[in-house]
Amino acid sequence: MAISLAPIRENIDYFLFQWLKTQELKNRDRFSEHERETYDAVLDLCQKLATEKFEPFNRLADIEEPHFDGHHVTLPQATYEATRAYAESGMLAATQNYENGGMQLPCTVEMAANSFFGAASVGLKGYLMLTVGNANLLMVHGTDAQKKAFAQPELEGRFFGTMNLSEPQAGSSLSDISTKAEPDGNDYENDALGARYRLTGRKMWISGGEHDLTENIVHLVLAKIPGPDGKLPPGVRGISLFVVPKNLVDVDGKLTGERNDIALAGLNHKLGYRGTTNTLLNYGEGKFPVRAPQGTDGKGAGAIGYLVGKPGEGLKCMFHMMNEARISVGLGATMLGFAGYIASLDYAKNRPQGRPMSEGSKPNKDPNQPQIPIIEHADVKRMLLAQKAYCEGALAFELYCASLVDEYKTGSPESSASASLFLELLTPMAKSWPREWCLEANSLAIQVLGGYGYTRDFPVEQFWRDNRLNMIHEGTHGIHGLDLLGRKVIMQDGAALRLFAQKVGHTCDLASEISGLESMATQLDEALINLIQSTQEAWATNDAPETLANATQYLRAFGHIVLSWIWLELAITSSELIEKEPHHRDFHEGKLAAANYFFDFELPLASVWLSQVAQRNPLFRQLNINSL
Amino acid sequence: MAISLAPIRENIDYFLFQWLKTQELKNRDRFSEHERETYDAVLDLCQKLATEKFEPFNRLADIEEPHFDGHHVTLPQATYEATRAYAESGMLAATQNYENGGMQLPCTVEMAANSFFGAASVGLKGYLMLTVGNANLLMVHGTDAQKKAFAQPELEGRFFGTMNLSEPQAGSSLSDISTKAEPDGNDYENDALGARYRLTGRKMWISGGEHDLTENIVHLVLAKIPGPDGKLPPGVRGISLFVVPKNLVDVDGKLTGERNDIALAGLNHKLGYRGTTNTLLNYGEGKFPVRAPQGTDGKGAGAIGYLVGKPGEGLKCMFHMMNEARISVGLGATMLGFAGYIASLDYAKNRPQGRPMSEGSKPNKDPNQPQIPIIEHADVKRMLLAQKAYCEGALAFELYCASLVDEYKTGSPESSASASLFLELLTPMAKSWPREWCLEANSLAIQVLGGYGYTRDFPVEQFWRDNRLNMIHEGTHGIHGLDLLGRKVIMQDGAALRLFAQKVGHTCDLASEISGLESMATQLDEALINLIQSTQEAWATNDAPETLANATQYLRAFGHIVLSWIWLELAITSSELIEKEPHHRDFHEGKLAAANYFFDFELPLASVWLSQVAQRNPLFRQLNINSL
Repeated sequence: MAISLAPIRENIDYFLFQWLKTQELKNRDRFSEHERETYDAVLDLCQKLATEKFEPFNRLADIEEPHFDGHHVTLPQATYEATRAYAESGMLAATQNYENGGMQLPCTVEMAANSFFGAASVGLKGYLMLTVGNANLLMVHGTDAQKKAFAQPELEGRFFGTMNLSEPQAGSSLSDISTKAEPDGNDYENDALGARYRLTGRKMWISGGEHDLTENIVHLVLAKIPGPDGKLPPGVRGISLFVVPKNLVDVDGKLTGERNDIALAGLNHKLGYRGTTNTLLNYGEGKFPVRAPQGTDGKGAGAIGYLVGKPGEGLKCMFHMMNEARISVGLGATMLGFAGYIASLDYAKNRPQGRPMSEGSKPNKDPNQPQIPIIEHADVKRMLLAQKAYCEGALAFELYCASLVDEYKTGSPESSASASLFLELLTPMAKSWPREWCLEANSLAIQVLGGYGYTRDFPVEQFWRDNRLNMIHEGTHGIHGLDLLGRKVIMQDGAALRLFAQKVGHTCDLASEISGLESMATQLDEALINLIQSTQEAWATNDAPETLANATQYLRAFGHIVLSWIWLELAITSSELIEKEPHHRDFHEGKLAAANYFFDFELPLASVWLSQVAQRNPLFRQLNINSL
Repeated sequence: MAISLAPIRENIDYFLFQWLKTQELKNRDRFSEHERETYDAVLDLCQKLATEKFEPFNRLADIEEPHFDGHHVTLPQATYEATRAYAESGMLAATQNYENGGMQLPCTVEMAANSFFGAASVGLKGYLMLTVGNANLLMVHGTDAQKKAFAQPELEGRFFGTMNLSEPQAGSSLSDISTKAEPDGNDYENDALGARYRLTGRKMWISGGEHDLTENIVHLVLAKIPGPDGKLPPGVRGISLFVVPKNLVDVDGKLTGERNDIALAGLNHKLGYRGTTNTLLNYGEGKFPVRAPQGTDGKGAGAIGYLVGKPGEGLKCMFHMMNEARISVGLGATMLGFAGYIASLDYAKNRPQGRPMSEGSKPNKDPNQPQIPIIEHADVKRMLLAQKAYCEGALAFELYCASLVDEYKTGSPESSASASLFLELLTPMAKSWPREWCLEANSLAIQVLGGYGYTRDFPVEQFWRDNRLNMIHEGTHGIHGLDLLGRKVIMQDGAALRLFAQKVGHTCDLASEISGLESMATQLDEALINLIQSTQEAWATNDAPETLANATQYLRAFGHIVLSWIWLELAITSSELIEKEPHHRDFHEGKLAAANYFFDFELPLASVWLSQVAQRNPLFRQLNINSL
């Protein structure tokens, strides 16, 4: 069962060019050579690539999951072909400057174009997104030599990249990492590629950590430089960042022929997302001894790595570049949901079963009537409309966040600062909301298909499995709740929350003037007031453990309010267009129906979740763990 | 990672002997030979069997899923050993009369004992539960000859059984089945095993439909007998029930050596629940031609089957015996949730990560402090307490429903009628509530384990996959919503709903006198009033399509109110015991904490869901399907 990407394209065109007005970025110097037509061409290309090289092999990448025989990792041929085709499209450098071989695309268009790959095969796409994130980081924080030797080959697709944060003993607790980086010989500061260190330690959950899709793998690794006492500094301030290639390179990014001391300790065998290798890597265990450090004999132990940025600023470098990476993760979760929606909508239109209910007091059905497609049943409509509201809403939201990236990078100083602040606030939701609700959409897609949905003959079960990863990686769900309530809404004395109130207020004002949207405007206004009051009440005692014990509920509620705001924005847009575009009447009616769904069935849940936050319900914090 | 079943046992002992007072059934004739000690012995035996023969092989049964080479289905050796051990324990006949080799156990104790197997391996357990359901049906609706030839060997474990309802073109819509049953020769009415028919047709989603675990498989098959015009009668009133053995038997249940004309068309390859074969069966396609009908030459086409009950009463026979089967399905979903809870609780106690948050306005953590087990973090406590509330609550609820079965079978006429009515009402929730919320518990278990939870090295991902089936089979979620709002709450002029109100009111009265439970009592009282009013408003226009468009929301809300009632019952029980049993203080504190969780975080959701039901929100019913 192939997934058509056409419905995604239709929505992207609407979100970008009718709602966000991305084409108006033409007025910015950076994007002056682009217009609607160039964006269309990029979207056309990516839709075609995703349809031809990714989507047909998504199940294959799941069935033929990466296999490690102790020496070599085997991947399906389709993985080589899909990643090669993407690299050749130039999309790895989509947002880079022209002089670096880039296209200077807005982030909004890059994300929109990448959404096709997320729907087509999240597992095959993984290597590429990691590589872009890695290269982006080096292009900002690396030296010119590092950009040339590592980032440039990544942008060209000769090398792929990874991010190495977690360790077996330190999953979410980065302050506890114990990978050690020691100066490599007396001349360690004189290497053209940056201060040279020897790394030893183990890194867990490293996606794309081993493969031979490209001639090299560029690892970005968090590690600690021992202090004068030989001990690793405690806490996150002791963390530095290193670029550690699988194969050593010269200043031009050419392989020297030396294998670095990074060994694959094993592959993780996952529930889903199987198209992307996930690895445990041993750095510097001596399996591949490499070079002698100056002043020693023979080959040395430890993986050779080069410092990126300043010592102790590893996390700063890593997270500085994470806004886009985080939107990308949220977008990935969204597109898995969207793919399931497309599959289940298609099935529901074509599967005959059951009959219309007759009017009156008894739910009778006439067995002599022909069966109807299941999409005619109210409960199937419910499951489809909920999926639509979750997935289209999430896609609109992610693209909105991407537009904030463009704004802070190219807007006026004032507008840029405002966009940056707003993005800081929205990021926890951008990552977390689709991870929860587009996963729920995937479950609904299975339900629409019934028994068939539970079999591996249909794609929806894989989407559900693949999507379950998203609440775990790149910051767990719980951690984003702490980030939101513990930091984002109180930073700068609540400036970001005030900005949110202002934006939502503006939307509500507009909507209150539009026939059919008045009650939504009122409802959202009330939800906003409740959110602000609940935030204040949550912090009334100024005691973080008390406040934050219900942070996950807060994240969930805030996310629902954000999505209500997005849906009201879309309802305004479609209300205006519905008369102008009679040929798109069904399309805009669908947007209004999804907005109605969200306001009737979803937004009211936020006040239930907020009530416990506002009361600082002590249940979880005070729970006797022996009573569990 | 092995799952200890001890926490389940501790809860069962509490539910049965401190809450439900199952030991008092001793006063009933049927159970007079039983007392606490005999129940303990059964529970001991099943806990041991499940621990030794099922739990260690649960992952194996998933990995080595059934394979069909075109001739033979291969299963792991563990499946033979586990099912054999269960059969030898006598549990297949647990509730049967002594004279039939049974133990005359109460349904409550049988269900409690079977709960261990659900937690240990739902896939291995499947064959056994189907066999019990099949034999139970024949023991009620079969002739003496059918009982002897088919049911008795099932109760002894020589034959296993299946239920054949669905067909490829008719999943939930049984009125559309087209399997045909035609009289087999002139003497068809004279067979000692019942009126003999030839069946032709295809049956889909048949669990346990093919294997060689036993010498025979007894299929119970819904089919239609053609009318005088040769056409199949429309609707469900035309459906009859047949017993169709894979291998023909004589009146003593001995194999005649003749293979019946039932062919395995293929195995379904599922997301989970892989330990149980799931099949597409072709009846009477001529692959195994069998016997010549009287008055013809050579072997005949069509599978030989014997009518059970009267023609046209197939569904009545099938559903009459479904109450216990439905509790069993709900229990299965519950125990998968429970198994995940046990696994994640164990992990959370032993996994060190992170540090306590310091008091004050900033969520600081001191990196020089040692790490703490993750169970100390508020959000992990939340995820564990939610699982506890879902799974222990669901187990209590399922055992309560089982106690209603005992009541209607052995209570006074008045009490029996009341129990039967109440069970009718509760059954949609007994099946549906755990399927939704214990699946959510499984997702929380994955989240507690983080990355490890997403790997196949830990059991929680399998529980989640296995549990996803439950919302689909044995009546989809949506269908139970229609059953509840469209039939159960309005039958006998609302008698069942009144009975529910009475029971809940009684519990609230008790709780309102107990220190610490007063506000829960008030909250539940209000929820009950809201439920009743919403039910009335939903039916105010007396128009089924309008009312039932939001039936799934109603099911969900009603389920949450039922579970709140159960938790208040348990809170009363533990409030009384907490002083009497100082050595069990933690245990009872846990019950009170779970009750608090449910009332603070779950019950308030019910009013949100009900509000749309009460308003008869027309969104789903009126939705333009082209706008999706």
